Amino acid sequence: MKDQVRTENSKKAVVLLSGGLDSSTTAAIAKAEGFEIYALTFDYGQRHAREIESAMAVAESLGVQRHLVLRLDLRAIGSSALTDDIEVPLDRTEDEIGSGIPVTYVPARNAIFLSIALAYAESIGAEHIFIGVSQVDYSGYPDCRPGFIEAFERMANLATKAGVEGANFRIHTPLANLSKAEIIRQGIKLGLDYSLTWSCYKGGKKACGRCDSCKLRLAAFAQAGFSDPLEYE
Amino acid sequence: MKDQVRTENSKKAVVLLSGGLDSSTTAAIAKAEGFEIYALTFDYGQRHAREIESAMAVAESLGVQRHLVLRLDLRAIGSSALTDDIEVPLDRTEDEIGSGIPVTYVPARNAIFLSIALAYAESIGAEHIFIGVSQVDYSGYPDCRPGFIEAFERMANLATKAGVEGANFRIHTPLANLSKAEIIRQGIKLGLDYSLTWSCYKGGKKACGRCDSCKLRLAAFAQAGFSDPLEYE
Repeated sequence: MKDQVRTENSKKAVVLLSGGLDSSTTAAIAKAEGFEIYALTFDYGQRHAREIESAMAVAESLGVQRHLVLRLDLRAIGSSALTDDIEVPLDRTEDEIGSGIPVTYVPARNAIFLSIALAYAESIGAEHIFIGVSQVDYSGYPDCRPGFIEAFERMANLATKAGVEGANFRIHTPLANLSKAEIIRQGIKLGLDYSLTWSCYKGGKKACGRCDSCKLRLAAFAQAGFSDPLEYE
Repeated sequence: MKDQVRTENSKKAVVLLSGGLDSSTTAAIAKAEGFEIYALTFDYGQRHAREIESAMAVAESLGVQRHLVLRLDLRAIGSSALTDDIEVPLDRTEDEIGSGIPVTYVPARNAIFLSIALAYAESIGAEHIFIGVSQVDYSGYPDCRPGFIEAFERMANLATKAGVEGANFRIHTPLANLSKAEIIRQGIKLGLDYSLTWSCYKGGKKACGRCDSCKLRLAAFAQAGFSDPLEYE
């Protein structure tokens, strides 16, 4: 009986799901690997609240076990174009986008998100957490690098009652070594409907097509040899 | 000029302040060490919202630079008597209180709180974070142990733009090796007014005197040789 519970728990995974291209593909991969998905989305006062609707649509399309949308207002902390009043840059080239740490960096965001995912995982008896970070296209974000993920995993097993009692929390980063184009190919192979996802940094009804995120997405679809099913302005 | 900014930044500290005895003493110690205090309090749907009023009173009495009260509803995650509907145990002996991981354990709480403190520190250009954990009286909480704090510190310096660019985030735990009685003696020496603090797990107007937290507090005041200035039922 105890073994059965253990087996069941080992199939549960918390998946950080923003509704964007990467996290949605990550959720599709977790599902394909046989995990029972507990999706976790943050409503953190970001401009693109449109993403949350997308997260809900993606979660439904994947038949997740539960989808928790947690309000966490990081605007009081600020210091980023995604939560503050700094202008989102438009029409930058891919080279400009790729250089340095982006203006859209949110301080310690993945540390915060993963810590809450860890709490959620512990409370439902899960040991697996999925996050859609990639070091290929997001080299500018320190908290998307493998060194950070490993350090977080180590910390996680010391931070929790379950960890101390023998659970082994694992942070899964199935996109770690994939380019944006490879991520899209993978998602399409798994039947993910990308028209449900959202990437635009601006909060319009249609994607702007001009912010860094839209430009990277469009270039990646082109490179992958598919057309983006999302509507653009 | 750059050096001056650096010096100023090095005196800034984010202090996690719940309004309880430990975090209030920690804030008094940070002040005595010459830090400019940015207090951070979480309103996390806990029963003892009374603590938040205490945090505000303590912050004011210490003349902090800024006090950020952040709403973070962990009730959706649950799994603890402090945020859930599990009954707070009353009238337990000190031996019972000290054994095992307490029912009031909140999953990964310090990992979450420290991650948000880290984001706050990065956004104001601070490298120092103070947290009032002690391994002496809180051996039951895994996230109060030095191994966890060290692992968190390591992760913090990989999680942030500032860390990657050369900042050195430090988690200060001035209470780490102090018993509750020693903490009180230290606070009284620094002139901290303990009538402003709050420890009771129940949300009444006066402290109950019967929950684990009240009992530990009263025993500690007795052991320290002082009388608790707080009103009890």
